[in-house]
Amino acid sequence: MEQLSLVSSNKIFGGYQKVYSHQSSELKCKMNFSVYLPPQAEGGDVKLPVVFYLSGLTCSEQNFITKSGFQRYAADHGIIVVGPDTSPRGVKIPGDDDSWDFGVAAGFYVDATKEPWSTNYRMASYVNKELYELVQQAFNNVVDPDRIGIMGHSMGGHGALISTLRNPGLYKSVSAFAPICNPIQGPWGAKALGGYLGDDKSKWVEWDATELVKKYDGPPLTLLIDQGSIDQFYVDKQLLPENLVEACRSVGVPVILKLREGYDHSYYHIASYIGEHFDFHAKILKA
Amino acid sequence: MEQLSLVSSNKIFGGYQKVYSHQSSELKCKMNFSVYLPPQAEGGDVKLPVVFYLSGLTCSEQNFITKSGFQRYAADHGIIVVGPDTSPRGVKIPGDDDSWDFGVAAGFYVDATKEPWSTNYRMASYVNKELYELVQQAFNNVVDPDRIGIMGHSMGGHGALISTLRNPGLYKSVSAFAPICNPIQGPWGAKALGGYLGDDKSKWVEWDATELVKKYDGPPLTLLIDQGSIDQFYVDKQLLPENLVEACRSVGVPVILKLREGYDHSYYHIASYIGEHFDFHAKILKA
Repeated sequence: MEQLSLVSSNKIFGGYQKVYSHQSSELKCKMNFSVYLPPQAEGGDVKLPVVFYLSGLTCSEQNFITKSGFQRYAADHGIIVVGPDTSPRGVKIPGDDDSWDFGVAAGFYVDATKEPWSTNYRMASYVNKELYELVQQAFNNVVDPDRIGIMGHSMGGHGALISTLRNPGLYKSVSAFAPICNPIQGPWGAKALGGYLGDDKSKWVEWDATELVKKYDGPPLTLLIDQGSIDQFYVDKQLLPENLVEACRSVGVPVILKLREGYDHSYYHIASYIGEHFDFHAKILKA
Repeated sequence: MEQLSLVSSNKIFGGYQKVYSHQSSELKCKMNFSVYLPPQAEGGDVKLPVVFYLSGLTCSEQNFITKSGFQRYAADHGIIVVGPDTSPRGVKIPGDDDSWDFGVAAGFYVDATKEPWSTNYRMASYVNKELYELVQQAFNNVVDPDRIGIMGHSMGGHGALISTLRNPGLYKSVSAFAPICNPIQGPWGAKALGGYLGDDKSKWVEWDATELVKKYDGPPLTLLIDQGSIDQFYVDKQLLPENLVEACRSVGVPVILKLREGYDHSYYHIASYIGEHFDFHAKILKA
């Protein structure tokens, strides 16, 4: 694994939570990503499913691995979990640090086409090509390339949805916590898509989960969406899961919307239901 | 609850993780503490056990509630969990911020007798009197005063041990992750005890778990100690659990030392075994 540097390795639930850094060719900067290797990976004589996890605004690869408690469930099911960072780091584009919802830690998992972002802000290609392939190469003794799923939170929940819908078959299972579901209709999404793609809204729909699902014609897919009922961003109509559900129903794509009474937008919501999501992914990936 | 201000409240595993602030009379400053109310507390018609959790060096009340995943087990067992901060805050004593292992976030759960620390650094009385009583008053509809236990990590693991051993019967159950077990024999302990108590080492032994257990004559007690085998502070002989075990055996106090192969000093170790600790406390507190 000459292209990877080990940043940290901690034993948890019998497996190892690792963080690596590498030089990304898509993003043209050094990036961290996390890999959880469950106990079943030891010995390297069995191929395991992989689930990618995409984080939300302001996060790095650290939030999920320290706050969600997912490792217990990944260890139970024998699933490898990979978590990229949320944007290029250290590329110092003017304005990249001016707001918490655009630029650094807010890559939105799209490939920017507008200058000055288009050189580095290629998170879609980074996740779905570069890191996807890197993980298969670096961990080829334990990764089953035919059983890869994806999940995420908020901006990363949308990232999981569009990564799946734009690349039919690449991810066999997909779920999301409090995802932005219809970004062209919300303030966060409009700011990000306008900033990264320019003013032509006909380009935005290519990166909008609700629009993409209407045209989806890949392998059968069930979407699992988990939403806290008192999440302020849900109340403020940044997330709009109902729009995604309506679009899914209009084209016959199965969707499960779990509305969780009293839960908010935090990792406390994720921790409470991440076990159910691992059950969901395991049922599909280990079928 | 006029003396408490609610700082935050988040639903997790069906209960609520709350943080309150209050003006502490022992510490003479404003303090935060956490309270997890499991789902069984709703309605307030049943008295539940309480477990205190004392954090380690550099921590606030936040680390445990965001990183350990304990809420799942507290919800399973119906246990209220209270987590104080690790030192007075904002009292601005010269030198209180010079090092990470003394002063701010390093109160060591003792009552300082040496100036200038003796006015504010009274964490033992804060935890074992003020907060202990405050929790019973503020949550008197759900707290069972006869079923209170304590646990902690590192400095806080030692705090849990000395709080129990110095106050026989106050805590019915006690456990610790990677505790400092014999502080008079290690660099951290010597620095803290000398700083807070002065140079007379005959005073130090009153705050040393290994010394205290030799004189313990309270109600029957079993100590559960959880130690990662590659914990650098264990390897460096800051923690010395073997000394505590030897002292326990010399006086017939039951002690369980779980040495966990490959685990380190981090919350990844705690997260992996906090469920076992809740089982241990529940077995005693719910007997």
